[in-house]
Amino acid sequence: MAEAAPLPLPPGSAVGILGGGQLGRMLAIAAARLGLEAHIYDPDPAPPAAAVATRHVQGAYDDAAALARFAAGVQVATFEFESVPAATAAAVAAHTALRPNARAFAIAQDRALEKAFLEETGLAPAPWVAIEAEAEIAPALARLGGAAILKTRRLGYDGKGQARIAGAEEAGTAWAAIGAVPAVLERVVPFTAELSVIAARGVDGAVAAYDPGRNEHADGILRRTTIPAGLPASVLQDAVLAAGRILRALDYVGVIGVEFFFAPGASGGPLFVNEIAPRVHNTGHWTIEACAVDQFEQHIRAVAGWPLGDGARHADAVMTNLIGDEAAAWAELAAEPGAALHLYGKAEIRPGRKMGHVTHVTPRRAG
Amino acid sequence: MAEAAPLPLPPGSAVGILGGGQLGRMLAIAAARLGLEAHIYDPDPAPPAAAVATRHVQGAYDDAAALARFAAGVQVATFEFESVPAATAAAVAAHTALRPNARAFAIAQDRALEKAFLEETGLAPAPWVAIEAEAEIAPALARLGGAAILKTRRLGYDGKGQARIAGAEEAGTAWAAIGAVPAVLERVVPFTAELSVIAARGVDGAVAAYDPGRNEHADGILRRTTIPAGLPASVLQDAVLAAGRILRALDYVGVIGVEFFFAPGASGGPLFVNEIAPRVHNTGHWTIEACAVDQFEQHIRAVAGWPLGDGARHADAVMTNLIGDEAAAWAELAAEPGAALHLYGKAEIRPGRKMGHVTHVTPRRAG
Repeated sequence: MAEAAPLPLPPGSAVGILGGGQLGRMLAIAAARLGLEAHIYDPDPAPPAAAVATRHVQGAYDDAAALARFAAGVQVATFEFESVPAATAAAVAAHTALRPNARAFAIAQDRALEKAFLEETGLAPAPWVAIEAEAEIAPALARLGGAAILKTRRLGYDGKGQARIAGAEEAGTAWAAIGAVPAVLERVVPFTAELSVIAARGVDGAVAAYDPGRNEHADGILRRTTIPAGLPASVLQDAVLAAGRILRALDYVGVIGVEFFFAPGASGGPLFVNEIAPRVHNTGHWTIEACAVDQFEQHIRAVAGWPLGDGARHADAVMTNLIGDEAAAWAELAAEPGAALHLYGKAEIRPGRKMGHVTHVTPRRAG
Repeated sequence: MAEAAPLPLPPGSAVGILGGGQLGRMLAIAAARLGLEAHIYDPDPAPPAAAVATRHVQGAYDDAAALARFAAGVQVATFEFESVPAATAAAVAAHTALRPNARAFAIAQDRALEKAFLEETGLAPAPWVAIEAEAEIAPALARLGGAAILKTRRLGYDGKGQARIAGAEEAGTAWAAIGAVPAVLERVVPFTAELSVIAARGVDGAVAAYDPGRNEHADGILRRTTIPAGLPASVLQDAVLAAGRILRALDYVGVIGVEFFFAPGASGGPLFVNEIAPRVHNTGHWTIEACAVDQFEQHIRAVAGWPLGDGARHADAVMTNLIGDEAAAWAELAAEPGAALHLYGKAEIRPGRKMGHVTHVTPRRAG
């Protein structure tokens, strides 16, 4: 790795962001607010983030020369996505500081590694069994004792690569559905709520977390996050503490999203860690309106060695994703009182594509 | 003028912003949030706004060819500053819609026209007399009956081009100090508070205003804006109504800043209009954190023919400008709880230069 720049990086420094989608776009805006340059790396000639970035380097994620050129021009680099090939991370880290570190990506992009890591860290994933072949599914199902979900170990995102299994007779169909690749079989946790914690850790080891939000998904895609979550304070606190443990165990720098199931009746519960996302997270978009330092700025602050915001929330919020042609109602959405509309500048509307989001923000209720 | 684009301008449309300073920068970010392109026109090769804009056209404000090229590439154009030469406005308006209209600039950049306009609109500027020659100062001073300020009719900004006059014997010095140019002599209003209203009017004539903020100046430069203002509700309401009258009288489209003196003891008071700024305004920066739709997005919405945000405020805020080397304390400022730091990306710190601002945001108190 190249010699690290002294921290905190002063205004005028360049932060490299690999991935120019909506997360990169909101990261670039946050960097600009702090007087930092955002450089975007993306294979697309006109990714959403490029319009608000100081520079855009176009290149494939396996183009070592372009990656080197990009990395040499920034004082720190980070990713907007977690499916980072190890070679890409290494190519970047050879020329500049990479935050978070490559181990966080390796763990987050492999469900078996992730669940093993959680258990080592003293946290509870949903009960699970690693699956390498179709024949392993039926005994695993029996061991888990109930309905389960077969998920590919790698590259799962927004509900893709998953198949639900009610009984052993469905094993073959499910195995074929996910493409007959290494997988985990995960017990269906009878949760009453999904929640997530957006937290951050600085270069100095300081940790800050936002209040946990309550999430609703539909068809495997996040639909809505509500803050406050309306769950017992002890549960929220446990979720925040779990996020802190994960950050420390990974020697993590940056923002992380940790999704939980709240299942009060389940043995080993009530909190199960569903997923770790080593990046800014869709369930943290509400922080843009409700916090002095939002998750995007928090991530930029962390990777640039700045002091973290304290995560305090001055308002209540409900964030709703605009999926596919829901964004076509932009004019009506813009007219709703208290609605903060965000459109990601994606030229083409596609079914299931996140086109924007809208946050309804209200004064913080007491308590 | 070219044929106007149908409104509201859909996402993907381009909004032209003449002037690439911090106001243009925050306008460009707001445009991006709505999925609109921001094109910046500025003579500087790397103005602060260019880093967050889709396109930057470099050109002088009297370069008709560059202005035409810029204007032809956008569906609407607006300015971040009010000292817009009439020829510049005309060159832009020949190729695209210009909002607000040229009359608002003409009035705002000439203090005599501005005060006459206010009186025609039934509002009270500070008592004043137009001055064309030094000899007119002493009789005007007698007529106003007290200490006064001599201000150049044109190009006044942040306290430049002003001279205070306690008695007739200071007329010559003051006249020389402002450069012996056409001026207005303005009575010193014994105000107890300065406040401002940031308001907007849409293409459809709808008006929305933010809660008035209370302002403190030092050396003619805005130091701090506090919201809520802590003034009687009737005064705040009168200020908002006055801003609405101004918007309608100018057939204005966009955001306007109207500064007032609150002088409970003065005859003709208690509210005097100090100044109109036909643009987003430094005293409205607090809306970024405290409102779902901030003043920058409100301006973009107005000029793009979108529905306006309702101006509702979900938090309390204190905005403090960072002038000159105050911005050098960025690391300490970033560490303050509840502080939202904004740095404008200006390479060079100069005394009196606005380098950034910091908004301390807190949950909205009841009432």
